[in-house]
Amino acid sequence: MERAREFYVDLLGFVETESEAGKIYLRGYEERYHHSIVLRLAEEPGLSHFAFRVSSGSDLDELTTLFESKQIRVKKMSRGSEKGVGEALRVQDPLGFPVEFYHEMDESERMLQRFDKHRGGKPMRIDHVNCQTPLVDLGYEYYVRDLGFKVSEFTESQDGKLWGVWLYRKQNVHDIALMKGTGPRLHHIGVWMPDVTSVIWVCDVMAGANFQDKIERGPGRHGLSNAFFLYVRDPDGNRIEFYTGDYMTADPDWKPIKWSLEDKKRQTFWGHVPPKSWYDEASKVESIEDGRLMEPVQVISQDRPSFAT
Amino acid sequence: MERAREFYVDLLGFVETESEAGKIYLRGYEERYHHSIVLRLAEEPGLSHFAFRVSSGSDLDELTTLFESKQIRVKKMSRGSEKGVGEALRVQDPLGFPVEFYHEMDESERMLQRFDKHRGGKPMRIDHVNCQTPLVDLGYEYYVRDLGFKVSEFTESQDGKLWGVWLYRKQNVHDIALMKGTGPRLHHIGVWMPDVTSVIWVCDVMAGANFQDKIERGPGRHGLSNAFFLYVRDPDGNRIEFYTGDYMTADPDWKPIKWSLEDKKRQTFWGHVPPKSWYDEASKVESIEDGRLMEPVQVISQDRPSFAT
Amino acid sequence: MERAREFYVDLLGFVETESEAGKIYLRGYEERYHHSIVLRLAEEPGLSHFAFRVSSGSDLDELTTLFESKQIRVKKMSRGSEKGVGEALRVQDPLGFPVEFYHEMDESERMLQRFDKHRGGKPMRIDHVNCQTPLVDLGYEYYVRDLGFKVSEFTESQDGKLWGVWLYRKQNVHDIALMKGTGPRLHHIGVWMPDVTSVIWVCDVMAGANFQDKIERGPGRHGLSNAFFLYVRDPDGNRIEFYTGDYMTADPDWKPIKWSLEDKKRQTFWGHVPPKSWYDEASKVESIEDGRLMEPVQVISQDRPSFAT
Amino acid sequence: MERAREFYVDLLGFVETESEAGKIYLRGYEERYHHSIVLRLAEEPGLSHFAFRVSSGSDLDELTTLFESKQIRVKKMSRGSEKGVGEALRVQDPLGFPVEFYHEMDESERMLQRFDKHRGGKPMRIDHVNCQTPLVDLGYEYYVRDLGFKVSEFTESQDGKLWGVWLYRKQNVHDIALMKGTGPRLHHIGVWMPDVTSVIWVCDVMAGANFQDKIERGPGRHGLSNAFFLYVRDPDGNRIEFYTGDYMTADPDWKPIKWSLEDKKRQTFWGHVPPKSWYDEASKVESIEDGRLMEPVQVISQDRPSFAT
Repeated sequence: MERAREFYVDLLGFVETESEAGKIYLRGYEERYHHSIVLRLAEEPGLSHFAFRVSSGSDLDELTTLFESKQIRVKKMSRGSEKGVGEALRVQDPLGFPVEFYHEMDESERMLQRFDKHRGGKPMRIDHVNCQTPLVDLGYEYYVRDLGFKVSEFTESQDGKLWGVWLYRKQNVHDIALMKGTGPRLHHIGVWMPDVTSVIWVCDVMAGANFQDKIERGPGRHGLSNAFFLYVRDPDGNRIEFYTGDYMTADPDWKPIKWSLEDKKRQTFWGHVPPKSWYDEASKVESIEDGRLMEPVQVISQDRPSFAT
Repeated sequence: MERAREFYVDLLGFVETESEAGKIYLRGYEERYHHSIVLRLAEEPGLSHFAFRVSSGSDLDELTTLFESKQIRVKKMSRGSEKGVGEALRVQDPLGFPVEFYHEMDESERMLQRFDKHRGGKPMRIDHVNCQTPLVDLGYEYYVRDLGFKVSEFTESQDGKLWGVWLYRKQNVHDIALMKGTGPRLHHIGVWMPDVTSVIWVCDVMAGANFQDKIERGPGRHGLSNAFFLYVRDPDGNRIEFYTGDYMTADPDWKPIKWSLEDKKRQTFWGHVPPKSWYDEASKVESIEDGRLMEPVQVISQDRPSFAT
Repeated sequence: MERAREFYVDLLGFVETESEAGKIYLRGYEERYHHSIVLRLAEEPGLSHFAFRVSSGSDLDELTTLFESKQIRVKKMSRGSEKGVGEALRVQDPLGFPVEFYHEMDESERMLQRFDKHRGGKPMRIDHVNCQTPLVDLGYEYYVRDLGFKVSEFTESQDGKLWGVWLYRKQNVHDIALMKGTGPRLHHIGVWMPDVTSVIWVCDVMAGANFQDKIERGPGRHGLSNAFFLYVRDPDGNRIEFYTGDYMTADPDWKPIKWSLEDKKRQTFWGHVPPKSWYDEASKVESIEDGRLMEPVQVISQDRPSFAT
Repeated sequence: MERAREFYVDLLGFVETESEAGKIYLRGYEERYHHSIVLRLAEEPGLSHFAFRVSSGSDLDELTTLFESKQIRVKKMSRGSEKGVGEALRVQDPLGFPVEFYHEMDESERMLQRFDKHRGGKPMRIDHVNCQTPLVDLGYEYYVRDLGFKVSEFTESQDGKLWGVWLYRKQNVHDIALMKGTGPRLHHIGVWMPDVTSVIWVCDVMAGANFQDKIERGPGRHGLSNAFFLYVRDPDGNRIEFYTGDYMTADPDWKPIKWSLEDKKRQTFWGHVPPKSWYDEASKVESIEDGRLMEPVQVISQDRPSFAT
């Protein structure tokens, strides 16, 4: 836990709301709720669950009905079973990801204008999760048709199949992305930064503290999403993307942008090729039933561009 | 027109979609529609109208019903009566502002990733309009109750009255703001920039071309909205705000932030006082009936902080 | 002292090399010597002395000879009379400023690449001092002819008289500037920053900690020197300029750039007018004889542009 | 030539002073002389010569004496034999590099504050040349002992031999660097940029115009020199470094910083490994005798870190 605190709080600058035995509750400078990340002591690294906030308590009932109609088992979480969080639902989504839905969370001081307290990389807010799954088509149907997400951009492999899809509810490029790969595995969480200089600063801060081997990919600009990005690995191997510079998707008639998997500029607009580890490695996810890490299913179709090997 | 083109296109970097006798159609680098600003030759400077895009054609019918129920006269605009725009409605809102609602607009090339074509200040997109009116309470009711806008932040004068209100539909701080003052007058349009460096660059570019007397206020950071701002005046006196650094308002339970008019940090977080002209001067607006500029009504209650005189 | 430490170390981010009763020794992140600023407890705010480093010990002998030839009294300082500093000379220069010359100073760790330790405004190094004096002509002769400084830029008042002069030994715009005004008074010390974003960050950090009333002027760009600047006042009223963006003066044939005092762009390239306090207020300086603050002589010729009143 | 103009002027933003048949004269925005780069039409890509400006005309005589004493043949160039340049000397230095020394050059308008004219990557000034040679020891002796350069930083290979050396006359990290490798070959010219954002902008501009395959290495931060860098190749394969963020070397007692060739942070502070081409490829240089490109001598000792293969 101390190593994790050093990394997330001292180095990267996440705000520690509070901590207790085996848990540290973190948030970004723009966030006004209790936490957006919980670090939990465990025997193996992995993801317990990610969570979406719904607009009202009644949305939880509606979701319960939906899940039951689809034979998805719903695990009801009572208020406070996660510190600061109200009543919640957890499901294993059709792709195997452990997903929570909640409405209420305790508030915390929003630190946006306490610039004198900003530290390290100055993370502003958790923006999205990116998931690896062999079942991108199924995920697309579930998230778009059942849960009402919209598509901002997507990628096709050379055989004309959907390779990856970027899905949003809030009005920017995504809340969740699905990329074809061995899964269910969490590829990364995306953290929003105010500008290019702040993303570069993460590199300098990490290397200044001798964590340069935790910088995995970037800085660079994605063609898909236009995001200026940096991927780092935490001491347990979990991947974080620090990024800025995507765009608003307030347009009700937004036309999803299509990219080819073999277009180098899709990945990195400047032509750089990601390292092999970026495709190979990701975080296992827990079963909501027994909390054990699920063994991912290997993807058999193409999981990366042919130039990235 | 040439002077306006020099200012908006050559200097500030707006993209010229096309032009015709007495009209120049402009857009920002992130915008994919025909235009977001039209410069129109006229005898006097002023605002013809501002416009909101609605989600579908049927929204126009719904709005017509609403306006009729409120005895607001609706002027129907046929497709193409403004170049590139589909069917539209125009009304004089209860505050006297000429407002258009439309759904369809022709598309243009989105220049977001044609970085090699970006020029001058690199304006990305029109973000909001800011209006002066003596009738802030009325405007609040109309825009929130009738049109479904939400409040991100607001300002009260010392007597506990609503002085100004920042209203959003899309998920950032505002699409329209109402500030107490002589009106109806358009105070400024807000243009979104990618970062602080770009806003500073507008200052340098303008002064490099000897337009420094058109820089009216800033650069600075607003306390209200957190925006890093710069206010410039075009050669006809119309005001443009270049800004970056406000925040997302995706939170369905967002609690409006309240400021006191007498709090210096509200205006400029760093304590700077705006010039007198920033309160005194604004653009008259046209009547949708006869196209003449409406004589604004002078406000009698407090129109500025007591320290800004 | 605690208030000063909070301001200089916690807020602005200067590195504290060490401290002792009534003294705090500070340096910037790029500096590899013991200190570049000493904060000393005193009954009144003011400047003890500023110091120039000479290239070798023998330069001190040469300077002694020069000063004696000019009947300038030399006060010899033994090694360690200021912590970390070797043998030194102190003189009251012909303008009345207390100036030290030294060669040796103890070394400290250079923190340039310890980005993880950078805090607050990230001050890199002390770059220059700016002095107010009624005797600009005399100062010009002394610093250029006797001490071998060169002129990068200068300002004339409307009567064709020298109003201010920017003088360098190291290869950028200045090590010392002389501006016409009541003096001898230290107008400010200049601190070099890596970029515009860092200067803006100083504003945000100061306002975040509620020190916005200590921001006196800027941010802006000087026409003279091209520096992107910010002037702040410490809790005792001493003025610090944070700046970036001047230029190298390695050209042996550099032609000094001439500006008119009445040219608004000289002061602020963007046309902004400095506040009255910027001309009126400055730090008194000590007599090297008795350590008492010298009463400045009021200037009778024009000490500011006619538009700055 | 048109392809070269498109790349250097339209895309990268160098200022074209003038052009004539087969030659384009370029300068950066901060430069006040006729040119700092000449593009010359030739059958094969390569370097005609690089040039150092000396402080006075008499320095040319002193250099002639020096070169004669060392049996280095001096080719005298009459005024105007290169457009805009006064009398000059050319030599093939002991490493085989064609080097010119001159004092006089015609002046041009300095565009530093014509921000409205800045385009593309906004190159400010040529800062240095970096050379590959098998004879680093010899080069070190020649440039330091004979020509009076000083060492800012250097690199040793594991056998304790000098691998590379960064040498300065003006007060920043270098005017010329020598790296062990097949040579004489010009590795790159270094162009100074005002900030990190401008370096990133070069990437975006190049990729926006579909020149992403000309981005060879970076963006990144060098450990050695602290420079934030980007290496691009022009359409003929010549390499340009765009960089910012090195430091002043005004300190007369500067202690050269020593790095190990095997230290990954030396190359890229963030741990990235350069591509093979960065070591393998460089520009041949001309003989000053007959203008033919000299065949480089292959280095037999280690020319790169063991991790860069």
